[in-house]
Amino acid sequence: MSSKHIVVIPGDGIGAEITAEALRVSQAAAKKCGYSFTHETKQAGGAAIDAYGVPLPEDTIDACRKADGVLLGAVGGPKWDHVAPELRAEKAILGLRKSLELYANLRPIKVFPALAAQSPLKPEIVNAVDILIVRELNGGIYYGARQEATIVNDVELAWDREGYSRPEIERILRLACRSAIGRKGKVTSVDKANVLATSRLWRKVANEMAAAFTQVEINHMYVDNCAMQLVLNPGSFDVLVTGNLFGDILSDEAAVLSGSIGLLPSASLGDGTGLYEPIHGSAPDIAGLGLANPLGTILSAAMMFRYSLGSEQIAAMIEAAVDQVLVDGYRTPDIYQQGLTKVSTEEMGQQVINRL
Amino acid sequence: MSSKHIVVIPGDGIGAEITAEALRVSQAAAKKCGYSFTHETKQAGGAAIDAYGVPLPEDTIDACRKADGVLLGAVGGPKWDHVAPELRAEKAILGLRKSLELYANLRPIKVFPALAAQSPLKPEIVNAVDILIVRELNGGIYYGARQEATIVNDVELAWDREGYSRPEIERILRLACRSAIGRKGKVTSVDKANVLATSRLWRKVANEMAAAFTQVEINHMYVDNCAMQLVLNPGSFDVLVTGNLFGDILSDEAAVLSGSIGLLPSASLGDGTGLYEPIHGSAPDIAGLGLANPLGTILSAAMMFRYSLGSEQIAAMIEAAVDQVLVDGYRTPDIYQQGLTKVSTEEMGQQVINRL
Ligand SMILES: CC(C)[C@H](C(=O)O)[C@@H](O)C(=O)O
Ligand SMILES: CC(C)[C@H](C(=O)O)[C@@H](O)C(=O)O
Repeated sequence: MSSKHIVVIPGDGIGAEITAEALRVSQAAAKKCGYSFTHETKQAGGAAIDAYGVPLPEDTIDACRKADGVLLGAVGGPKWDHVAPELRAEKAILGLRKSLELYANLRPIKVFPALAAQSPLKPEIVNAVDILIVRELNGGIYYGARQEATIVNDVELAWDREGYSRPEIERILRLACRSAIGRKGKVTSVDKANVLATSRLWRKVANEMAAAFTQVEINHMYVDNCAMQLVLNPGSFDVLVTGNLFGDILSDEAAVLSGSIGLLPSASLGDGTGLYEPIHGSAPDIAGLGLANPLGTILSAAMMFRYSLGSEQIAAMIEAAVDQVLVDGYRTPDIYQQGLTKVSTEEMGQQVINRL
Repeated sequence: MSSKHIVVIPGDGIGAEITAEALRVSQAAAKKCGYSFTHETKQAGGAAIDAYGVPLPEDTIDACRKADGVLLGAVGGPKWDHVAPELRAEKAILGLRKSLELYANLRPIKVFPALAAQSPLKPEIVNAVDILIVRELNGGIYYGARQEATIVNDVELAWDREGYSRPEIERILRLACRSAIGRKGKVTSVDKANVLATSRLWRKVANEMAAAFTQVEINHMYVDNCAMQLVLNPGSFDVLVTGNLFGDILSDEAAVLSGSIGLLPSASLGDGTGLYEPIHGSAPDIAGLGLANPLGTILSAAMMFRYSLGSEQIAAMIEAAVDQVLVDGYRTPDIYQQGLTKVSTEEMGQQVINRL
């Protein structure tokens, strides 16, 4: 009997509905495996701005620090688009990443055969997609020094600093190499070394790492070429590792290849508590209507069992149930196609539970 | 009778073959229209490293400065990958952009109906693509201060500075808005204003510009979302304007949608001489074999007539001839499909000339 504890942060928009289903599925799967965990709910994002005047209350941070894992829905929405910059809902995400020192964002992008037809890409290109994007999440231009618009010698200007240190690069590359060992053993490190000094250091460290990980093949790719290859030849990637900004862009580009971003999970890892959330947004337009797809959050919960709660068994059980639900033709409206069975957010959760 | 003068820079790899055809087509088209221009050939890139020990000789820069337009093939190749960083072939490109103050890179991305089937995207998605990407080319992190790997307090680190000033942002946005007027009147300004101070200034300037260009509709999009939308819904874009780094990534991503990067031209404009080049690389593996597709360079020459040589008539004539050659089924090997007529680089040039 384990005694793990998780924090659930519903967030805004559809966040409450999708985390509710992911929690139900997690509890049912845990029960089947004789595993138990406790949970508490905390606020962040717009909901926290409304309740406490700040997007990321100290109380939420403290609870997350003490927990074994955090399951998050989605934050933000037009209601909070016009608050002061330091209060914006996104600050909750950036703040959590920093407070928990979540330096690695893992985004597995895999095509569910049952959904491949919904990809914008031709079937023969999309079929082979199985990519793990490892994005550095705690450094780079996201957290460098910056200068908001200011007047210098009569000219208005602004700047931001991109930068990485060797330890930051080493830990993310190490994680990428380790992840590749359980996969095809191939790591593509993406940078812009023909222009950026930061990328040249990144590349140097990656080459040194390559010497240490002899089971892994590391190759380098420029970010512009990578943006092309993800569309032309996505099946050629295994693990893709890159910095925070390039990772933001490339992981979203890669996400749409799958044809169903509502199903994509993510894990943000550090040395302490991990954070798990679907990659889609808070979709305020459909909030509360039972139309949201909970599968991305359910699959994020599976990752939480794998990386933070120490149960590969439960992770695999949830993932297999999701596969089966799709094979059996259940679809929320975002992925619905004629002839299949349209279900609500809650029914989708139940169908997953039925197949555990 | 005009007396315009151009510089041709063949560069490396397939550069000589493709610029030769573009020059032949340009001369033939000019003749038909009673227009004449002179030209001279200059070296840059690996060819210049071999001949003069530097990738961008002063003599080349001077000639370009004095010319009305510069037509470039492609530079670089593995032969020069291991020279000292400051001698790398790419320095020729970055140096030319800076010396000629080419602040705007125009990348029209249009799908030739005859080639749409070669796109990695499904036909119904790709059909409507007609995007003009306007990339800022003379500022941002490409030319900001940077620190190569160095040890500070026992930690090795490196950094690069992204930054823009108001005048830099204004001139590129103005150019984007003007370009939109002859098109669908829609400008999408791409940034990362939820993270970067530079983007927040960019967005502020764009909003002010919107007030001045009432015929144009300006909207904002985050770069990660843009990377998604280019694949999901590329037909929704008209003019896309962005900074140097985001433009590098997004223009290459958008290029592959067309299914035929061998056909895509580019123009780099400033207040003086303009530079015209295909978007593809120097393809050293097929250099000298007559296998290269000259159409991207030929269409770049058309843009040169439009923007630098003052003849919309010749530009349109060349573009129409290229369309017709494709409709008539002529294909270089990169775009060949069974049942069509495979031609060499030179034959392709001749087929275009035959249709002027
Ligand atoms: C909300 C935003 C700050 C965030 C980011 O850029 O990291 C988001 O795009 C993401 O990828 O999680
Ligand atoms: C060669 C390189 C420096 C260049 C760039 O990044 O601008 C290239 O990718 C391009 O887009 O023209």
